[in-house]
Amino acid sequence: MKASELAKVLGGTLEGEDVELSACGGLEEARPGDLSFCKDPKHVQLVESTKASAVLLPPDWDKGAPCSVIRVADPNHACMTAAKMFAPPEPVRAPGVHPTAIVDPSAKLGKDVHVGAFTVVEKGAEIGDGAVIEAQVFIGEGCKVGAKTHIYPQVTLREGTIVGADCIIHCGVRLGGDGYGFNNGRREDGSIFIEKIPQLGIVEIGDGVEIGSNTTIDRARIGRTYIGPMTKIDNLVQIGHNVKVKGYSGLIAQSGIAGSTEIGYGCLIWAQAGVSGHIKIADGVQVGPQAGVPQSLDGSVRYVIGTPAEPMKEFGGRVLVPKMLAKLKAEVKELKAKVAAK
Amino acid sequence: MKASELAKVLGGTLEGEDVELSACGGLEEARPGDLSFCKDPKHVQLVESTKASAVLLPPDWDKGAPCSVIRVADPNHACMTAAKMFAPPEPVRAPGVHPTAIVDPSAKLGKDVHVGAFTVVEKGAEIGDGAVIEAQVFIGEGCKVGAKTHIYPQVTLREGTIVGADCIIHCGVRLGGDGYGFNNGRREDGSIFIEKIPQLGIVEIGDGVEIGSNTTIDRARIGRTYIGPMTKIDNLVQIGHNVKVKGYSGLIAQSGIAGSTEIGYGCLIWAQAGVSGHIKIADGVQVGPQAGVPQSLDGSVRYVIGTPAEPMKEFGGRVLVPKMLAKLKAEVKELKAKVAAK
Amino acid sequence: MKASELAKVLGGTLEGEDVELSACGGLEEARPGDLSFCKDPKHVQLVESTKASAVLLPPDWDKGAPCSVIRVADPNHACMTAAKMFAPPEPVRAPGVHPTAIVDPSAKLGKDVHVGAFTVVEKGAEIGDGAVIEAQVFIGEGCKVGAKTHIYPQVTLREGTIVGADCIIHCGVRLGGDGYGFNNGRREDGSIFIEKIPQLGIVEIGDGVEIGSNTTIDRARIGRTYIGPMTKIDNLVQIGHNVKVKGYSGLIAQSGIAGSTEIGYGCLIWAQAGVSGHIKIADGVQVGPQAGVPQSLDGSVRYVIGTPAEPMKEFGGRVLVPKMLAKLKAEVKELKAKVAAK
Repeated sequence: MKASELAKVLGGTLEGEDVELSACGGLEEARPGDLSFCKDPKHVQLVESTKASAVLLPPDWDKGAPCSVIRVADPNHACMTAAKMFAPPEPVRAPGVHPTAIVDPSAKLGKDVHVGAFTVVEKGAEIGDGAVIEAQVFIGEGCKVGAKTHIYPQVTLREGTIVGADCIIHCGVRLGGDGYGFNNGRREDGSIFIEKIPQLGIVEIGDGVEIGSNTTIDRARIGRTYIGPMTKIDNLVQIGHNVKVKGYSGLIAQSGIAGSTEIGYGCLIWAQAGVSGHIKIADGVQVGPQAGVPQSLDGSVRYVIGTPAEPMKEFGGRVLVPKMLAKLKAEVKELKAKVAAK
Repeated sequence: MKASELAKVLGGTLEGEDVELSACGGLEEARPGDLSFCKDPKHVQLVESTKASAVLLPPDWDKGAPCSVIRVADPNHACMTAAKMFAPPEPVRAPGVHPTAIVDPSAKLGKDVHVGAFTVVEKGAEIGDGAVIEAQVFIGEGCKVGAKTHIYPQVTLREGTIVGADCIIHCGVRLGGDGYGFNNGRREDGSIFIEKIPQLGIVEIGDGVEIGSNTTIDRARIGRTYIGPMTKIDNLVQIGHNVKVKGYSGLIAQSGIAGSTEIGYGCLIWAQAGVSGHIKIADGVQVGPQAGVPQSLDGSVRYVIGTPAEPMKEFGGRVLVPKMLAKLKAEVKELKAKVAAK
Repeated sequence: MKASELAKVLGGTLEGEDVELSACGGLEEARPGDLSFCKDPKHVQLVESTKASAVLLPPDWDKGAPCSVIRVADPNHACMTAAKMFAPPEPVRAPGVHPTAIVDPSAKLGKDVHVGAFTVVEKGAEIGDGAVIEAQVFIGEGCKVGAKTHIYPQVTLREGTIVGADCIIHCGVRLGGDGYGFNNGRREDGSIFIEKIPQLGIVEIGDGVEIGSNTTIDRARIGRTYIGPMTKIDNLVQIGHNVKVKGYSGLIAQSGIAGSTEIGYGCLIWAQAGVSGHIKIADGVQVGPQAGVPQSLDGSVRYVIGTPAEPMKEFGGRVLVPKMLAKLKAEVKELKAKVAAK
């Protein structure tokens, strides 16, 4: 798209060459052909060194630029608008079942449902109105998928899984796999046995939940593993059997919640953190990146970090220990000398 | 199912309304329509506040309940029985090859094998009697799958992978991907090179192994990456090339074992733990959650925790360091004052 | 293969029984039927206890062996040669589109492209000459895959993803999933809202990149998530939106890079390490296993470890703290006694 056309759409004015633009990017990462943006004169150096072909700048910018300039009232907003125009078109997933999809005759599909190529929908499954089930998905027996939920390619829902309305399930998500549970010990003759504990429950996902690529959520031993409404889960997260996430929480990439734990409303579990099994995290608590939480948190502390997890202040103190120790050592040495001299 | 019918099946007696029940759940998470259970009078408060529609209680329970009651001799056992009745029916995977599956004519299928829709079985692969290969699975050239092994949808076995009998392989498992191995350095002219080291070996999985969703096990550089019998692996676990897990061990979610390491019999690697490459963990050793093991463990310590991993006692002592340091600091201050006063 | 045949191929001489050999393995893990190797007399004990059926030894080895011996000039090199002969044959992926694959008529396939069974290639996608797209892959609208790139089964490329030439993408990799981004807060009436931020950008992968099984790389919010040339990524790695990995770097299994972070040239991020968002890691820096990096690293330190990450020397000092503290405590006690006695 020509810079002049873009300026027209954005309600701005072009200064300099009428370059061809095809993408957006921050000032530092932009390349020739990119549009970038800057609002704040304190970033003037980044503007001066950008490789973008054009930059969105506010009307009062008087520091120049090494490329074409499109002046607009609000460069950030204008850049978002431009980004939408440059974005790869969102693929149209028109209502209808792809001829290669295998949908069991007993499955119930709502109005305007899309089912993609090579997708399998098994016996008794129900798909709500306007849901999009993309290609190569597996929907097991008796699963329920709510209205307008979007399931991306190569997701698997094992039998009995329930997904609410308006959810987004990204590629490679695994819902309803068996929880990890075994009885083991020794038989009378001394030999070892390891016996699978049947995992008889299901996974239930509330409305408005988003689940990132390759995340795994296990079915309950009995009852339900439950992810409450509006919970937002990132990629490669592990959620064990019988976990309950009440709702409106965030679970960031590669974090893990062990079996039967309850996560309150509005919690935030940061990347690579781990929460032990059979405990409760109170509403609104944040668990910092890579933290390990061995015990319930009652909400008296709002943010914990470290392994075992502790309040930020204590964690920060811990980081300073070597320096404090060195200082104390020197003091003791000095004191020893004094005592010896007396 | 009506509570009265369920009471009959469980050999118990119903007190209160003949409610409709459709699932099981613990006292705290149960909802209307659920059956819960309690054995121990000390949980009376949980019974009083449960939202279950009925609760299984022992004959001598005299504390009442806010819902219907089914009296049975063993509430825990009865609840498991009920859970099996409520459980989503285990899908029948009848013997036979789905018409859409692509099975190479040179592949050998045993008796009563199930092959699901859109599954690919390549040249020379062998599938044992009674094995279930679900939909959308990829079985590469020359793979062997043992009798009665169950492979869930969307698993990939790269060429040459061997899986034993009675295994369970959950959705999204990747067996036999290339190990991570590169030679790098600088050429005579100063330019950098990074060269792939061929990964020529295979993955071999023993009998009775279970592997959780989205776990990855790499093929050996030469020889075999080996997972011994009855090993139970959770979700999102990473096992590097040439690792040897002798058998009867557990590897919990998101743990990782680096290349060429040996894990003894009966070990337990807890969630998010990491074990370095080229070391040995002795039989029966447990590696705690999030621990990082840089060196071989000879079994003289049975449980390690922390990074670098150490015995529980030392790890516990480490946690106390800031408090101990503060106390010592105060003592030194006091001592200083005394010395100055003399 | 008979040991005598192998000896001939390797230019060596067989001593002992003409055993049948079918695999290679290190001295310790080798089993009957395996060929092993040893070069260095200091490993004589491993040779003595090996279960291999034959072992490659140098001409001057005079310590015997418990099995057949093939003498060769360079045992290591000979073993690699043998391993190639024993390796499962690399499956032939001949040029051509499998009849079950669904390739949109608007997609452009280069010369000698292989497209496997049940693979979907959507509108406007472009696949370069000699590329191999295996079975059950999903290539979204407008994706570009470079020449000779090899994509293994069950990979998904969301719309607009660009992959360079000579790349290797292993099973279960997810490219172009939505980045994790939400606006949240409270509405005027006090109710909570959580709003998805559109993820409008793409993922772009440079030439010669290898990506391990089940790794996830998110599309940019705007612009590109960029993985530079020759970067080698292991299994189960998470790369957030707008991350830039300049090139020639290694990211080991289960590590994670949070959004908008830049990783310089020639970096090495070890297993299970985490790098925070919106920071920069200078060229050539190594981040140790399980380390957590909260701030930019300017390259003045070449290797960091721990959480928060610090130089090895400081981390090592931290490990020693409990011992140092105990020693200091004893000194203070002694000093107290002295002061009291004066």
